[in-house]
Amino acid sequence: MTTIRPFETGDWPTLWPIIEAIFRAGETYAVPRHISEQDAHRMWIELPRAIRVVVDAQGEAIGSYYLKANQSGPGDHVANCGYVVAAHARGQGIAGAMCKHSLTLARELGFTAMQYNLVVASNTVAIGLWQKHGFTIAGTLPLAFRHPEQGLVDAHVMYRLL
Amino acid sequence: MTTIRPFETGDWPTLWPIIEAIFRAGETYAVPRHISEQDAHRMWIELPRAIRVVVDAQGEAIGSYYLKANQSGPGDHVANCGYVVAAHARGQGIAGAMCKHSLTLARELGFTAMQYNLVVASNTVAIGLWQKHGFTIAGTLPLAFRHPEQGLVDAHVMYRLL
Repeated sequence: MTTIRPFETGDWPTLWPIIEAIFRAGETYAVPRHISEQDAHRMWIELPRAIRVVVDAQGEAIGSYYLKANQSGPGDHVANCGYVVAAHARGQGIAGAMCKHSLTLARELGFTAMQYNLVVASNTVAIGLWQKHGFTIAGTLPLAFRHPEQGLVDAHVMYRLL
Repeated sequence: MTTIRPFETGDWPTLWPIIEAIFRAGETYAVPRHISEQDAHRMWIELPRAIRVVVDAQGEAIGSYYLKANQSGPGDHVANCGYVVAAHARGQGIAGAMCKHSLTLARELGFTAMQYNLVVASNTVAIGLWQKHGFTIAGTLPLAFRHPEQGLVDAHVMYRLL
């Protein structure tokens, strides 16, 4: 049994290693691989409009997502989210549950669309999951991502109305 | 005769009214229409990797562009630019000259692609100009921009390799 709830300050020591492992791997996020904990905290916790945390039956954080406006001014009705799941908690549908939850939250906050700016084309599991939740590939950016093993790979812009 | 040269601190008092008119109109940039001069300065001058200014034969600034990485980390080889031209200097090929100049500069700085994240679909002149300079519409974001007269309109992601 997992629960999705708002972020609390005490979650960070558990969340940071989850986020850190994903950023350090450099395979999915357009974030500096050697980002400092402080910069990651600003990006994931301080700047977004909302942060949610997935906790397991024991109350331990095993995933998180942030939600923010993807652009400013006349583009600020389109939301953007980032999701992380702890390595030991994958394959349990947690990313899908967060995606669904974030779509509902975005609607509640008044957003009318959601956009993912850079979905690495080699990340086929994520692409399939986002498509299952109503996203389409709006376009493909040739060689827009430097994958640590695969080199320059394409990335997709994925989008859906809410 | 126009010249494109690096930004100098003394250019700002001339540039700001040009930039301000375009941001206040709210028709092309995903920037808050009522952005402060200080925030605009940060966005156009402080944060980008490079800023260039177009000056006319009398040495007066009539246009400007900024160049920056569009994403961080494994996406920071893709450049992004924004361009402004003074109202009284339009129709003289200045935007095209800046586009061409920025593509060369991006290559010199080591970028291997350039991306425009939100080209308002109603801005057909700009779209045609970017296409003339080698950009393609990588994808279209339905209703991603709130145009002050036209309401919600589509926006394009435009992209080219360098």
